Amino acid sequence: MSAQTESRFEAEVYGGRLERAAELLRAAHLDALLITPGPDLEYLIGSRAQSFERLTCLLVPASGATPSVVVPKLELAGLTDSAAADLGLEIVDWVDGVNPYQTVKSTLNVGARVAVADAMPALHLLPIADVLNALPVSATPVLRQLRMRKDASEIEALRRAGAAIDRVHGRVGEWLRAGRTEAEVAADIAAAIVEEGHTAAAFVIVGSGPNGASPHHEHSERPIESGDVVVVDIGGPVEPGYYSDSTRTYVVGEPDPEIAERIAILEQAQAAAMAAVRPGASAESVDAAARNVLAQAGLGEAFIHRTGHGIGLSVHEEPYIVSGNDIVLEPGMAFSIEPGIYFPGEWGARIEDIVIVTGDGCESVNHRPHGLTAV
Amino acid sequence: MSAQTESRFEAEVYGGRLERAAELLRAAHLDALLITPGPDLEYLIGSRAQSFERLTCLLVPASGATPSVVVPKLELAGLTDSAAADLGLEIVDWVDGVNPYQTVKSTLNVGARVAVADAMPALHLLPIADVLNALPVSATPVLRQLRMRKDASEIEALRRAGAAIDRVHGRVGEWLRAGRTEAEVAADIAAAIVEEGHTAAAFVIVGSGPNGASPHHEHSERPIESGDVVVVDIGGPVEPGYYSDSTRTYVVGEPDPEIAERIAILEQAQAAAMAAVRPGASAESVDAAARNVLAQAGLGEAFIHRTGHGIGLSVHEEPYIVSGNDIVLEPGMAFSIEPGIYFPGEWGARIEDIVIVTGDGCESVNHRPHGLTAV
Repeated sequence: MSAQTESRFEAEVYGGRLERAAELLRAAHLDALLITPGPDLEYLIGSRAQSFERLTCLLVPASGATPSVVVPKLELAGLTDSAAADLGLEIVDWVDGVNPYQTVKSTLNVGARVAVADAMPALHLLPIADVLNALPVSATPVLRQLRMRKDASEIEALRRAGAAIDRVHGRVGEWLRAGRTEAEVAADIAAAIVEEGHTAAAFVIVGSGPNGASPHHEHSERPIESGDVVVVDIGGPVEPGYYSDSTRTYVVGEPDPEIAERIAILEQAQAAAMAAVRPGASAESVDAAARNVLAQAGLGEAFIHRTGHGIGLSVHEEPYIVSGNDIVLEPGMAFSIEPGIYFPGEWGARIEDIVIVTGDGCESVNHRPHGLTAV
Repeated sequence: MSAQTESRFEAEVYGGRLERAAELLRAAHLDALLITPGPDLEYLIGSRAQSFERLTCLLVPASGATPSVVVPKLELAGLTDSAAADLGLEIVDWVDGVNPYQTVKSTLNVGARVAVADAMPALHLLPIADVLNALPVSATPVLRQLRMRKDASEIEALRRAGAAIDRVHGRVGEWLRAGRTEAEVAADIAAAIVEEGHTAAAFVIVGSGPNGASPHHEHSERPIESGDVVVVDIGGPVEPGYYSDSTRTYVVGEPDPEIAERIAILEQAQAAAMAAVRPGASAESVDAAARNVLAQAGLGEAFIHRTGHGIGLSVHEEPYIVSGNDIVLEPGMAFSIEPGIYFPGEWGARIEDIVIVTGDGCESVNHRPHGLTAV
């Protein structure tokens, strides 16, 4: 396999991330990170271990000492599919009948100010709080400083993901036509998402006619009709685990002129938000840029969600492009720009690209035409 | 669709569960249950909502007042695929930019002794602890009293799941032969799991030769060889969401006599554990029954995991059949009996049935022959 299709980066990438995580812990006056399976574990050691009732937990001490992994002896094999061995991490296995939370406490051997992964379930978090006799804090304020700023390899993966999903959008006309159900079209799109280079189809939204007015509608047995406006919002991961996510709005046959006019305004709103992205701008200013265009056209009430979300090893991660988020954009941050307009019972439309902040603006990883596309 | 293939039970089933949950909360001196998406939410209101970064949370007050669901306005449609409307639950929706944890606090309007679902991620648990100014406790000590004891409808679903996975084991000889890889065999088995009535193949372990010695090995590109012992551990959900989970051990061609002898002892150990299941016995006594047979034959060191786990809407749930668990078995409890023996670098074997505790013993939902099966 080429490096591009490996399921993880070289070990030194993870070594660097662990070192920077320890530095950030010290700056935040925390003693250690506790990371259970999920995207944070994949980010830090390249492990896609699944979470079950038995505790698997990476411990990263702020001191810079060697991190450890507490892992059920039964699930040791899962760790070999990670950078743990190459990084020389200490492996602390445990067997059924042992209390793994005590194992965490004795392995940590540090103060009790620990930060835990957002994905850690209460099943593990509550007993950890109990043995440490202290409530952990969220690791995200530390980890987002790493995960939000994509490095060159991550940006390259996001570009490949964008190109792959663009190829799928380029083929939507093969499948989307009157008389077929949303579910039939979605099945063809799901297969194409994999054919075009993703390891899976993570989500396939085909919202036709009134179903397009519900932003999180997936697909249904509704037959598509001539004249329908259809929202197609699709994506999945490419190796080593980075997601695509792109929405285009289609029309089957000739569009109603009033609908076409409103979607042209949505296109302007999406372009305005893209133009607002630059280092130093706030996340909420990008949201406002899209919202202002729609409000000025009397469509403000139809835009019922935030403008975007960060993306990487998770489909949704920081930074969120939403009113109230004053986080300052920096080069390497990657997120969606996806304003939409929704008319309950009638139709909806959304246009979505993934952008990466550059030195003076942004780069979109998606390049399909933005306007209403007739099929 | 027949009732058997519906994705949830009638609304009154969930109404009864919510009432009993409130009673158990009062007995435990708790004020409310907070349940995010996962098997507890499916158990209580029949919702398979997915968990994302936006909070969805069922609030069940101990007082017996009407439960509420706090849900993102965008994801309201997902709730319609649940019993929420039929149950008359109060729906409290929230939009991007609002703090949903404050919404939970103001909707609860009770004391701060709340219990949370084991599946609740730190992402939501930490801010809930913050707004309530109190650390929640786990809801499992309350909910397991409901979820562990299956009612007649749940037992019927587990029997259907057992029959479906038995049909798959009955066909393993069609696919398992020398020269094919574990992955090829696993793909055929996964397709058959769905063909035989499951909604998905949740797990497919095909561990041949030395791979069988790693209990959580899934499958690999290893070609199966003549004489290999092969562990096949498979399962998935049948509607309305109840899992099958059954393991049989196969041999390709003629078995080595010493291996056959050891597997015959394993079969005795599994039978001894089944015979130990009855109301009033402890979970750990069932574990000990299997372990003693193996220890007496000098195979105690080869049995490296617990004897079993509860099963229902989760593949693994309470009660766990493990040393140290003194929980007393009661009619309606359902769990696996799955001792195994593992010889690193050589081979492994496991035999697994799902049993349901009856008035005077147990009923197995699996009926395939238990011994080493030649293919």
